[in-house]
Amino acid sequence: MVRKIILDCDPGHDDAIAMILAHGNPGIEVLAVTTVVGNQTLEKVTHNACAVREMIHMNDTPIAAGCIRPLVKEIEVAEDIHGDSGLDGPELPVPTKGILEEHAVDVIINTIMSEPTGTVTLCPTGGLTNIAMAIRKEPQIVERVQEVVLMGGGYHTGNWSAVAEFNIIIDPEAAHIVFNAPWKVTMIGLDLTHQALATPEVRKEIKEIGTKPAVFVDELLDFFSKMYKKSQGFDFPPVHDPCTIAYLIDPTVMTVKQVPVDIELNGKLTQGMTVTDFRYPIPENCHTQVAMELDHAKFWGMIYDALRNIG
Amino acid sequence: MVRKIILDCDPGHDDAIAMILAHGNPGIEVLAVTTVVGNQTLEKVTHNACAVREMIHMNDTPIAAGCIRPLVKEIEVAEDIHGDSGLDGPELPVPTKGILEEHAVDVIINTIMSEPTGTVTLCPTGGLTNIAMAIRKEPQIVERVQEVVLMGGGYHTGNWSAVAEFNIIIDPEAAHIVFNAPWKVTMIGLDLTHQALATPEVRKEIKEIGTKPAVFVDELLDFFSKMYKKSQGFDFPPVHDPCTIAYLIDPTVMTVKQVPVDIELNGKLTQGMTVTDFRYPIPENCHTQVAMELDHAKFWGMIYDALRNIG
Amino acid sequence: MVRKIILDCDPGHDDAIAMILAHGNPGIEVLAVTTVVGNQTLEKVTHNACAVREMIHMNDTPIAAGCIRPLVKEIEVAEDIHGDSGLDGPELPVPTKGILEEHAVDVIINTIMSEPTGTVTLCPTGGLTNIAMAIRKEPQIVERVQEVVLMGGGYHTGNWSAVAEFNIIIDPEAAHIVFNAPWKVTMIGLDLTHQALATPEVRKEIKEIGTKPAVFVDELLDFFSKMYKKSQGFDFPPVHDPCTIAYLIDPTVMTVKQVPVDIELNGKLTQGMTVTDFRYPIPENCHTQVAMELDHAKFWGMIYDALRNIG
Amino acid sequence: MVRKIILDCDPGHDDAIAMILAHGNPGIEVLAVTTVVGNQTLEKVTHNACAVREMIHMNDTPIAAGCIRPLVKEIEVAEDIHGDSGLDGPELPVPTKGILEEHAVDVIINTIMSEPTGTVTLCPTGGLTNIAMAIRKEPQIVERVQEVVLMGGGYHTGNWSAVAEFNIIIDPEAAHIVFNAPWKVTMIGLDLTHQALATPEVRKEIKEIGTKPAVFVDELLDFFSKMYKKSQGFDFPPVHDPCTIAYLIDPTVMTVKQVPVDIELNGKLTQGMTVTDFRYPIPENCHTQVAMELDHAKFWGMIYDALRNIG
Repeated sequence: MVRKIILDCDPGHDDAIAMILAHGNPGIEVLAVTTVVGNQTLEKVTHNACAVREMIHMNDTPIAAGCIRPLVKEIEVAEDIHGDSGLDGPELPVPTKGILEEHAVDVIINTIMSEPTGTVTLCPTGGLTNIAMAIRKEPQIVERVQEVVLMGGGYHTGNWSAVAEFNIIIDPEAAHIVFNAPWKVTMIGLDLTHQALATPEVRKEIKEIGTKPAVFVDELLDFFSKMYKKSQGFDFPPVHDPCTIAYLIDPTVMTVKQVPVDIELNGKLTQGMTVTDFRYPIPENCHTQVAMELDHAKFWGMIYDALRNIG
Repeated sequence: MVRKIILDCDPGHDDAIAMILAHGNPGIEVLAVTTVVGNQTLEKVTHNACAVREMIHMNDTPIAAGCIRPLVKEIEVAEDIHGDSGLDGPELPVPTKGILEEHAVDVIINTIMSEPTGTVTLCPTGGLTNIAMAIRKEPQIVERVQEVVLMGGGYHTGNWSAVAEFNIIIDPEAAHIVFNAPWKVTMIGLDLTHQALATPEVRKEIKEIGTKPAVFVDELLDFFSKMYKKSQGFDFPPVHDPCTIAYLIDPTVMTVKQVPVDIELNGKLTQGMTVTDFRYPIPENCHTQVAMELDHAKFWGMIYDALRNIG
Repeated sequence: MVRKIILDCDPGHDDAIAMILAHGNPGIEVLAVTTVVGNQTLEKVTHNACAVREMIHMNDTPIAAGCIRPLVKEIEVAEDIHGDSGLDGPELPVPTKGILEEHAVDVIINTIMSEPTGTVTLCPTGGLTNIAMAIRKEPQIVERVQEVVLMGGGYHTGNWSAVAEFNIIIDPEAAHIVFNAPWKVTMIGLDLTHQALATPEVRKEIKEIGTKPAVFVDELLDFFSKMYKKSQGFDFPPVHDPCTIAYLIDPTVMTVKQVPVDIELNGKLTQGMTVTDFRYPIPENCHTQVAMELDHAKFWGMIYDALRNIG
Repeated sequence: MVRKIILDCDPGHDDAIAMILAHGNPGIEVLAVTTVVGNQTLEKVTHNACAVREMIHMNDTPIAAGCIRPLVKEIEVAEDIHGDSGLDGPELPVPTKGILEEHAVDVIINTIMSEPTGTVTLCPTGGLTNIAMAIRKEPQIVERVQEVVLMGGGYHTGNWSAVAEFNIIIDPEAAHIVFNAPWKVTMIGLDLTHQALATPEVRKEIKEIGTKPAVFVDELLDFFSKMYKKSQGFDFPPVHDPCTIAYLIDPTVMTVKQVPVDIELNGKLTQGMTVTDFRYPIPENCHTQVAMELDHAKFWGMIYDALRNIG
């Protein structure tokens, strides 16, 4: 059965690859791409989303722009990872299609409310501002959504602070809202995504596909590699966001553990931490789970397949 | 010139009197009444707003319901002040008119965006959830609004904690958003509203007006008096919310001081405090001001006039 | 009856005047002067204490040095008020007498434990590090002390932040320990001490006394005036610390109100605030009280008398 | 070369075994045992320390009692792990020897200051109140101590909260002081000590030693097993505290990693967390390290040897 998703993202190199994986896999139907400030300003990431859509012939998928800043904190972008445009590296196609007039928050709400209950999955791969706004504006979406599978956080790994990850720390209040809503949340955090490395073998395989989108991905990974090497010391860059889509395509691509997760709002050293409680006993009705081990070959195999499907 | 306002409220005894003052004063045009969880649940305060509208023949004014809960914190209502219905005391008329289908957040946004820049004033008299949501969904409202005149906080006075007031402490993150937006905010806090006491002389004057709405106000004040006596030791109840409207009708009804105000989000003892910085030197371009001294006679005179106008 | 006190201080211009008032008043016996980092480094304030002792012939009073830094926070000194030496302005006499070998914390403990229960009053006029350390090292001092009369905090006034005062904000954890110990604490905060202004009339009176210590005080006030004008906009400087001694000499020199006070440790805007709860009902067994209104003439009269007594 | 240590502890079942390991190993000389509130009240843990000393003929080692409560937080004891006495299970011998009159804080300071620089190691296995007090009272101890090897915290493991360990969470301010002093700190946290399990093989080996102290340890482990099973779901109990001594005897008993560690004071979910920053690049001059992998056989071998040595 095809999984219908809303991809709420801030492209972003790995967001772009998430779009590619979602669009290129027959098991996924992207109802909408919504954008949110994060890796770069809203204006830039929305332009990038449109450019990626153009590149991969995803023309039937609407794009809507969302929040220009986090709920409480000031804007912080990830220029040291994604560059000035948010998608530095490849030359981007000029989008021929525009975005919806509606605000992303309303697109999220209306899409969920107009589809049958339990059929739409939310895939946030950026800060959680749009999703939090949607919950607070239309609380009924919580019970209508099938599940939330998000990239963000980490139970034992941080990047923007010792113990917090970028997507969460840029809007901890939004994350608090999303993680505390009583829907099923799968946190695909740095613990998992730091295994999704674009190794030389991966790079070679993608190069060999040779299509325009494959070249595009190669150029994205080229830039991404340099930035991750420089700023975080990675030999090969972790490609975070498509892990969410991979999990929806085939959950056996990773192991998960059901365990409570909450967001620290106040700590001086820990603000934005996804506090995960592995202590005994794990509550039975816990609505959050965390991703642990990635099947690296299976994951990248999905990416290759998607690229081949897109052609 | 008539002041066009949006009254964002949670009736509430004193919210009801704010509606009466706004409707009964020829200098004020209420473009919309929007409701928000606060003194009671959203359902109850929205019903109350409709009942008050019915009581005072305010039929042309649309009412829209907003957020059912604060941004981050759990719901906390003021049952010990406003009773189980949120408007205990008088018998309420059955509303003959319903509410808008639109969400209050959109009503606020659309109203502001459709009126000329600088002509709409926001009067929040409850928690600031709706206003915060509106700013984050449509940031342009900040520069289009004429000013924000709100009841909430206190520079030296608290009620729900030693140093925080109910409207702010129930949604500090929302208050943080509203006070930090670069519009003009007049904080009419407990320092001022604790002077707006419904003394025996006031009560006598209102009784003598004798109209149905005056009897209604009298019954509201009767209940309010008992609750304030019991829970906070007041001899006569402070009638907070109409002070915002009174200031718009005639700013000489109170003194104000331009001074920076910010919201404490993290303190264990001080969460939700409206931290006001009276230290030298006051920054010249400060966009917040606080209300200090009330002209009690002038204030209540406006209420009497409004009641007489409503008839 | 003579009041036996330990003066725990960080001279500091107003600490020096507190030493003078205590030494020059026949109703006060200073068992020890103990020093603590605050207005300047421990080394400097200890030297200053010895120099003031020298100046005012207070030779029988032992001085002991205490903590070189706050419990948790990093050192912050008040150079913009007290200058590089901590006592800038007058030329200081060279001390002919040294300090005790014992640590101030032990001097405080041993003094209290060796005097009869209920006969020693603690007068802290700096950060509360020494006192907090003493409580935690010897908890019995809490019930043996007569009372604590301290300069610090403010219920509605801040200086080092919008709502916090220097002595408290430099070591909030120590203040938390002191205010939460179950002894009687009189907080003489900025609300009171900002009334203890060295007006031109005061300055003239002191000048006319004409003794060496009076000249010394005049020079202290001269420097203090300039610094307070420059950094906080005061026309005449507030002379905080001797207010504690004045209260012990004659409590009618000020009004006080029994009211709960606690210390905020965590707030982003409010750390170090002396959170005072004026709400109804004030708990009957409240062990803290705050100073409110100063009798300016009576206060300065005590200072003149002390200077005349010292000669 | 014999390592001279001060064992600052709160016996406590595993503290008792730490005493045994330290006393029974010829490479360790215990200069003093100092006690601190923690697993139980100061009175109880001090009595327990004396009883253990009695049991293992450790008569030449002085014991001194320290702080009866944490710096800022209220007392919290671990009765669900250590029982009402703090050392429930075995019958305790009646101590024939008393404690020093001096306060543990002074014993710590005087011992360090009277031994040659760089020769005394601090082994705290309880809350860090005594050590923090000693640093603040005599800052020179920081440069005179050889190193600090403590049981507490955890980089990825919590027990008293999702992310905090008992010894740290009961006095986070003290831990903050200790971890931020510029001495070498080895944190042997739950990540390591949860590997130090008293398995059936371990239990059997200890039983076979058959001496009175071995029976005592067996009875301790018997009680400890039941409590850990019940409260934290462990099949075999983790024996935390002797890991510190084992590391001093032979550092190859565990792997360690040099990495920054700091203490969260303010978090709502994370207070008392030992925030460990594994991000690239690890600062070269980092003064903290964390224990990672335990050599289980080597560790327990040391315990057996110590028991045999004690006889």
